[in-house]
Amino acid sequence: MKVKKLVDQNFILSKLNKRNNVFIHHTAEVSENATVGKDTRIWNNAQIRENCQVGRECVISKDVYIDIGVCIGNRCKIQNGVSVYRGVTLEDDVFLGPHMTFTNDLFPRAFVADFELHTTLVRKGCSVGAHATIVCGVELGEYSMIGAGSVVTRNVPPFSLFYGNPAKFHGYVGCNGEKLSFDDNGIALTADGKKYKLSEAGVVLYENE
Amino acid sequence: MKVKKLVDQNFILSKLNKRNNVFIHHTAEVSENATVGKDTRIWNNAQIRENCQVGRECVISKDVYIDIGVCIGNRCKIQNGVSVYRGVTLEDDVFLGPHMTFTNDLFPRAFVADFELHTTLVRKGCSVGAHATIVCGVELGEYSMIGAGSVVTRNVPPFSLFYGNPAKFHGYVGCNGEKLSFDDNGIALTADGKKYKLSEAGVVLYENE
Amino acid sequence: MKVKKLVDQNFILSKLNKRNNVFIHHTAEVSENATVGKDTRIWNNAQIRENCQVGRECVISKDVYIDIGVCIGNRCKIQNGVSVYRGVTLEDDVFLGPHMTFTNDLFPRAFVADFELHTTLVRKGCSVGAHATIVCGVELGEYSMIGAGSVVTRNVPPFSLFYGNPAKFHGYVGCNGEKLSFDDNGIALTADGKKYKLSEAGVVLYENE
Repeated sequence: MKVKKLVDQNFILSKLNKRNNVFIHHTAEVSENATVGKDTRIWNNAQIRENCQVGRECVISKDVYIDIGVCIGNRCKIQNGVSVYRGVTLEDDVFLGPHMTFTNDLFPRAFVADFELHTTLVRKGCSVGAHATIVCGVELGEYSMIGAGSVVTRNVPPFSLFYGNPAKFHGYVGCNGEKLSFDDNGIALTADGKKYKLSEAGVVLYENE
Repeated sequence: MKVKKLVDQNFILSKLNKRNNVFIHHTAEVSENATVGKDTRIWNNAQIRENCQVGRECVISKDVYIDIGVCIGNRCKIQNGVSVYRGVTLEDDVFLGPHMTFTNDLFPRAFVADFELHTTLVRKGCSVGAHATIVCGVELGEYSMIGAGSVVTRNVPPFSLFYGNPAKFHGYVGCNGEKLSFDDNGIALTADGKKYKLSEAGVVLYENE
Repeated sequence: MKVKKLVDQNFILSKLNKRNNVFIHHTAEVSENATVGKDTRIWNNAQIRENCQVGRECVISKDVYIDIGVCIGNRCKIQNGVSVYRGVTLEDDVFLGPHMTFTNDLFPRAFVADFELHTTLVRKGCSVGAHATIVCGVELGEYSMIGAGSVVTRNVPPFSLFYGNPAKFHGYVGCNGEKLSFDDNGIALTADGKKYKLSEAGVVLYENE
């Protein structure tokens, strides 16, 4: 258990800043063993621990905690007070609403030194609402959306809208967050011109023609 | 994106302190463009952003975040870890329990630069319980009370008690928090001598005679 | 309302550190009137207020708030962002998951100066999941387990698993978190060799033979 020397940290961070246009608020603590991508901003009292990888153009807001070894993709927005624990992986374009939290232990006990870490994977474009809790061991599918205050206890398919405690399926949403209405051929169009296909395997996005 | 210079800030804050008896903990960050009323106390790591207006005799507790341009009335108590986002307005005498949060975007996506901001209005005397989530676009009525851990998704009438996920109506409460029992004439009295009238339009408080 | 002088605090803390192997992060604020046991670690931006007693080998994580006069046993693990309010007592070996919170006022109002404080007792070995809310005035029994995102509104018996909003009984768990399956004699064995007896009075642990 060693405290990072603030002098060394600031020295390293100021170099980072110059090289990569990374903004790190003076109250944030970023491990010298973490890598932070270009144009990422890290705000008040945020903490990024050893061996994390944070992508480009991310926003890490006030009081956020990124645990040891966590990988975060590009253009992720992590709102105030979020904890991303070890075992969680975020792909690109993930939105984590204010004060949501992850977990990594199904049966935590204070007196058990070692625990079985359960991983959680958050796929590209997923959005998690404010105050949601993600119980570990699940996958949140591409562009899925988790409502505010939800408790997620199982896998969420791509483009699905889940909410409640426990969170349940409440239809499909597009990349822009619009609810999808499928016609008889299982096709849905959204206002931004995107086209989605519903089949037994779930929803897929057609690339724009 | 510019970092406030700590020296300037402290200079301004120390003047504020002398003039208005405002207390600002040395770890809090208050924008020089925010106005803070007399006798308000701002605690550890709280952040008050540009163009906020915070009233008199408020308590802004540890780790609270007040977003750009938010207006907060007099005598509000905001407990630990609360985020009050842009688009939220608090009238006087509002209580925000620990770690409750607001939102301001119904369909957040990390990759959407502009979003439609939905406003939230919290009326005079309202209390919001610990860990509650207020989904944006609603009005919390005068002296209404939101139970701990609730997820509020619609308007809450004055003097109403709401709780659950989603939060539902569970009766009426008085200014003192006491449950209201109405007689055949739709009149309820509380221990503090206040009188309430229930009609089709909802509950109103009679001024003390 | 007086601000602690940082110089005095650091002086006292550095003495504490030498005497007791206590680790206190340089951003944490520990009252000089609090007592902190041997080998306890206190992390970023945590705050421990006047007259608290924190036991030995505890972990007090990032942004945790321990209110005036709170007593915390030995080997407790308190995760990020937890608020332990006045009136709460933790026995030994308690786990508090990330961003869970306690409360101490059933009908909070911003404009009521004095309120009736309701106490909460967390018994030895209890675990509280992430984001759970404990409404004040309850007892969480020995080795009970509260699921993530729960809202607890009543007493939880020893070895019980509670979850949901409001939290309800969902069976029994052992010290190791394993679900207990009782045979016809009301005896359950767990993988770690421990033996439990179910009777009308609830579940008790037999000491290992």
